[in-house]
Amino acid sequence: MLPEFSLTEWYDISTGRLRGNRPVVERRLVDLQGCFADEGEYAALLSRENPLLYTVTAVDHSEGVGDLHYGLGVLHPGKVGSEYFMTKGHLHSWREAAEVYIGLSGRGVMLLEDEAAGESRLEPLEANSIVYVPGRTAHRTMNVGDKPLVYLGVYPARAGHDYGAIAKSNFRMIVVEQDGRPVMMARDNSL
Amino acid sequence: MLPEFSLTEWYDISTGRLRGNRPVVERRLVDLQGCFADEGEYAALLSRENPLLYTVTAVDHSEGVGDLHYGLGVLHPGKVGSEYFMTKGHLHSWREAAEVYIGLSGRGVMLLEDEAAGESRLEPLEANSIVYVPGRTAHRTMNVGDKPLVYLGVYPARAGHDYGAIAKSNFRMIVVEQDGRPVMMARDNSL
Repeated sequence: MLPEFSLTEWYDISTGRLRGNRPVVERRLVDLQGCFADEGEYAALLSRENPLLYTVTAVDHSEGVGDLHYGLGVLHPGKVGSEYFMTKGHLHSWREAAEVYIGLSGRGVMLLEDEAAGESRLEPLEANSIVYVPGRTAHRTMNVGDKPLVYLGVYPARAGHDYGAIAKSNFRMIVVEQDGRPVMMARDNSL
Repeated sequence: MLPEFSLTEWYDISTGRLRGNRPVVERRLVDLQGCFADEGEYAALLSRENPLLYTVTAVDHSEGVGDLHYGLGVLHPGKVGSEYFMTKGHLHSWREAAEVYIGLSGRGVMLLEDEAAGESRLEPLEANSIVYVPGRTAHRTMNVGDKPLVYLGVYPARAGHDYGAIAKSNFRMIVVEQDGRPVMMARDNSL
């Protein structure tokens, strides 16, 4: 038989939310401790406010070996110093798992870092772009525009999210605004 | 290292095509022999013209066990008698493989049929809807509007496409327009 749950989900492009009462994960500035290179600006902003950076709504009904999950992300515009608001970023626990990101609205970039060889790359994530994230690749999303960035990520059900590896070693690169444009630079050289 | 191919693809929502010179699969009326229940209307239309029903552009770089492929589909509006223009439909060769469909523009429905138990269901595929197709589920797309239906499908790299099972046993249900709306009915009772 087909599953009893609804196979169709509807999203609202203006809010980036799925219809219905599905649980939404919220990440605020305080949750991104250690992500921004400029710790002074981070602490200064956090002393004044604790803005909502992003939400993720996951649709993860089934856990079969060939199953897929997906998540709808909304990343709000803003900066900490010259660094764009970003997601925590993750590797997949099952390292082989790829992910396909589909930009729906707003303007963003994805920072992709090969876990082993140390290559980093920026890819555009916005309406009409689709980004393939290979396995063994840490990925983090930045909003480089002035409206919410709304996107979908589709991934194997068994991918899992490994935030620990990122929290420990961090992304090697950061993305800052220079002359109104996103520029990638080494974290170590950034301050 | 990250792969050498471009990780980002751009699509044009008005044409449903990916930028660049990626190969496009074209399916015309003549390629859908046996799909429409009304064989008389099918033959009559085919004697006059052989319209393009749909195109699929696949992005299938990598074949790893955790990899994902995706395809951009454009299904044109039209009918054969009262049956909407449709895709051939398929099961995945690797039956466990699920697929996530993302509606981008136009108005369509997906016919989902559980291979084993004989359950059939219609799901809406249009802008702002996302359809989860479980494993072991035959799926076919119909355009029920008057503009091209543009959609993305994301699936495990190893899913494969089994058109033979469908060609042999066919979908059990057909979708016809009645009073301006799509209605699902048993193929055997349809004529």
